Amino acid sequence: MAVTSATVREICVDAKRASRSLAQLDTGAKDAALLALADALVERTPEILEANARDLEAGREAGLSPALTDRLRLDAARIAAMADGVRQVAALPDPVGEVTDGRRLPNGLDVRKVRVPLGVVGVVYEARPNVTIDAAALCLKSGNAIILRGSSSAAHSNAVLASIAASVAPPNAIQYLGGGREELAELATQEGLVDLVIPRGGEGLKAALRAVATVPVIYAASGNCHVFVDASADLERAVDVVVNAKVQRPGVCNAAETLLVHADVADAFLPVAAAALRERGVQLRGDERARGIVGEMVPATDEDWDTEFLALVLAVGVVDSLEDAIDHVNAHGSGHSEAILTRDTAAARAFQRAVDAAVVYVNASTRFTDGGEFGMGAEIGNSTQKLHARGPIGLRELCTTKYLVEGDGHVRA
Amino acid sequence: MAVTSATVREICVDAKRASRSLAQLDTGAKDAALLALADALVERTPEILEANARDLEAGREAGLSPALTDRLRLDAARIAAMADGVRQVAALPDPVGEVTDGRRLPNGLDVRKVRVPLGVVGVVYEARPNVTIDAAALCLKSGNAIILRGSSSAAHSNAVLASIAASVAPPNAIQYLGGGREELAELATQEGLVDLVIPRGGEGLKAALRAVATVPVIYAASGNCHVFVDASADLERAVDVVVNAKVQRPGVCNAAETLLVHADVADAFLPVAAAALRERGVQLRGDERARGIVGEMVPATDEDWDTEFLALVLAVGVVDSLEDAIDHVNAHGSGHSEAILTRDTAAARAFQRAVDAAVVYVNASTRFTDGGEFGMGAEIGNSTQKLHARGPIGLRELCTTKYLVEGDGHVRA
Repeated sequence: MAVTSATVREICVDAKRASRSLAQLDTGAKDAALLALADALVERTPEILEANARDLEAGREAGLSPALTDRLRLDAARIAAMADGVRQVAALPDPVGEVTDGRRLPNGLDVRKVRVPLGVVGVVYEARPNVTIDAAALCLKSGNAIILRGSSSAAHSNAVLASIAASVAPPNAIQYLGGGREELAELATQEGLVDLVIPRGGEGLKAALRAVATVPVIYAASGNCHVFVDASADLERAVDVVVNAKVQRPGVCNAAETLLVHADVADAFLPVAAAALRERGVQLRGDERARGIVGEMVPATDEDWDTEFLALVLAVGVVDSLEDAIDHVNAHGSGHSEAILTRDTAAARAFQRAVDAAVVYVNASTRFTDGGEFGMGAEIGNSTQKLHARGPIGLRELCTTKYLVEGDGHVRA
Repeated sequence: MAVTSATVREICVDAKRASRSLAQLDTGAKDAALLALADALVERTPEILEANARDLEAGREAGLSPALTDRLRLDAARIAAMADGVRQVAALPDPVGEVTDGRRLPNGLDVRKVRVPLGVVGVVYEARPNVTIDAAALCLKSGNAIILRGSSSAAHSNAVLASIAASVAPPNAIQYLGGGREELAELATQEGLVDLVIPRGGEGLKAALRAVATVPVIYAASGNCHVFVDASADLERAVDVVVNAKVQRPGVCNAAETLLVHADVADAFLPVAAAALRERGVQLRGDERARGIVGEMVPATDEDWDTEFLALVLAVGVVDSLEDAIDHVNAHGSGHSEAILTRDTAAARAFQRAVDAAVVYVNASTRFTDGGEFGMGAEIGNSTQKLHARGPIGLRELCTTKYLVEGDGHVRA
C-alpha cells in the first residue's frame, strides 16, 4: 500500500480530531474498550496467527536471523499474554484528571494542576508485534490517539493487531501507518498535530528520527549499567545479584555491563564471582587490578567502560573507594540503572544521592527497571532523558498537565 | 573579552562538576546563600548602577529605543525589588528531595520517585538585567548550576550582577558567558554537559537557538490568548475582565489578543465593551457579525486570528455556541492562557476540559498566568510545550526525578 505524504498528514489530522474526544472519555468507557480488545485478541487468534505466518514466511525468504525470527513469532500463548497485558492496563488507575497540585491564591483564585492526555502520540517500533497492542492499550487508557508504525518485517501481524485494536476504539483513535523512511519523516514533522513520537528500537531507528524530527521525541535509552560491590557488601548475595544483573537477560538495556568492586573485598569477591559468571558463559574483561586477582580475564580497553555489550560480556574494575565508584559511574554510565551492594547505610545514601541516573538501586539487581515491575503496567520504553520522563514511560508519562483556574471575575492589579 | 569555544566547553565542564555538589547542598545552605545575595545586591547598589550607566550610555550611542532603554534601566528601587525576589525564592520550599511517588512492590522492593536537580541549566535572555538575578536564584535554590548569557546591550550590568550572585554561591555554580552567536551555538551543543537551555527573549533568539541546539531546550511561549464571553456571563464583570486581559500590560504573552462573544449576548455586550476598550486606546478588528453590531471596527483579516499583537489591538468575533468558541480557540490559540466568562457550570466545565492550553480560566483575566501569581516564586518564562513543563517554569520545572529502589539482595526471576 502506497502511503503518500498527503495521506500521512490526513492520518495525523484525523488523529488530532479523535484526540479531542478521547481526552473526554470516561474511565469506564476506556476500560470497557480495553477489555473488549483483550477478548477480541483471544477470539481472533487464528486470524492473527495466519498473518504472522505470512510475516514468518517472508522472513525466511529474506534470511531473517533466528533471534529476530523469534521476536517476530506469535503463538497462542503469546497472544494470550498480550491480552493479559491489556487487562492489566485496564485495571490501572486512569491518569487523566488526576490533580497533581493545587491551592487557593491570596487573591482568592483557585488553581488546580490536572493531568491531561498529550494528544497524538506516534510510536515507531521494530520487530516485536506485541508492541502494537502494548502501545495502543497504553495510549487508549491515557486518552491519547496513537499512530502506530511498525517494521515492514512484521507488516501483516501488525496490520491485523492494529485493526483489532482500532475496532474497539473510537474512530481514528488507533491508526496504523505503513510506508518507508519518507512516511516516517512525514510523521515526525507534523508540528501542531503530533505531540510526541517515541521510537522503540535500535540505534539506527533513533538516528533516522533524530535527523528529521521536528516534533517532540523521547529517545528510549541505551543502558550502560553498573553494579558496585562495596567494601561492606554481603558477598554471597552480591554474587547472586551480579549474576542476575548480567545473565538473566543480557540483551536488554537494564542488564549490567560493568562490575566495580571495592579494593577491600576484591580478593575475597572476585574469584567467586568470576567463577559463577564464567559458569554461565560470561566473558570477563578486567582492568589491571582485577586481572591481578583473576588471571584469566581479557584486558579491558578504554572503550569497554563505555560499551553497552548487550551480550554475555562484563567489564570488571577494582576501585579504591565509594567516591571512585561514583565518579566512574557518573563518567561512564548512560544514566539508566545503577546499583550498589552494601550493608553500610552511609554508603547506600551517598551512592543514591550522588549517582546521576534514572534508577539507583541499593541491594538489588538492575534488571528491575521496567514499567511492569514498577507497578506501572506496560511501558513504552525507558527514558534516560531528564526532561518529562525519566525511567519507564507509562500512563502518566503519556500525559501532560493543564492548570485550571477559577475566579469571580478576577482582574490583575 | 573573547570567549573561545574551548572556553565555552571549559565553562560547561566546570558547571557540570559544580552541579554534582550543588545537588547535595542542604536547603539551609542554599537559603543562606540566597539571603546573602539579597543583602549583597542592596549593599552593592552603587556599583550596579555604575555598570548600568555604562550600558545606558552605550545604548544611547547605539540609538536604543525608549522601550528597550526602559527595560535596561536600573535604579535603587528596581534593585531592591530584585533583592526582594531573591528573598521570596529563599522562602519557597526546596523542590530537591521531594518524594513525588512511591510504593512497596509485591516482591518487597521499596521504590521512591524523588525530585533532583537537572544539573546544568543555560539561560539565554535579552535586555532586562533582572533576569540575571531571577534565573540565578531559581537555579541555586533548585540545586542547578547555571550558565547565564545575557544580551550585549546589558553586558556591564549583567556582568556585575552575575559576579555578585557568583560570590555567594559555590565555585562555578553561577557563571556568565559573553561572546556572540558562536558562543551561543557552542553552549547549545554541549551534549552531556548542559542539561537544559531556556531562551527568554523574542522570536529571533528562539530561531537562532532552534537552528543549532542539540541539547534540550524549552521554548518559552508566544501567547495568542482568548477571552470568550458566554451567553450566561455577568456582562458587567466581563467588561472589566476583557479590559484587564487586553490593556493591563499589552506587551506580554498572557495578554488577550482575541475576544469571542456568544451571539446571544453580542448585542448587549459588544457596544459597552467596545466603548470601554476604545477609551483605553484599543484598536478593534472585528469579524462581519461584530462589525454589524459595532460599526467602527476595522475588518479582521484571516491572519488577525493567529496574531499575537502584543499591542493595543484586539480581534473580535461573534460565535454561535460554546462549541464554536472552543473550536476557534483550539484552532487559533497558541496553548497559553484561555478564559471563559460564564455563570453556567456546564459551560465552565466543558470549556476547561476541551480547551487545549497550559492554563484555562473561568471568570478571571488571562493575565494571572505567571509563576509569581501562582505562588511559585519567580519564573524563568512560561512554557506552552506539553512535555516536561507546561505553564510557568519555576523551581520544580528546573528539576527532574530519580527512582530510588531498595532491597535485600533482590534478583529478578
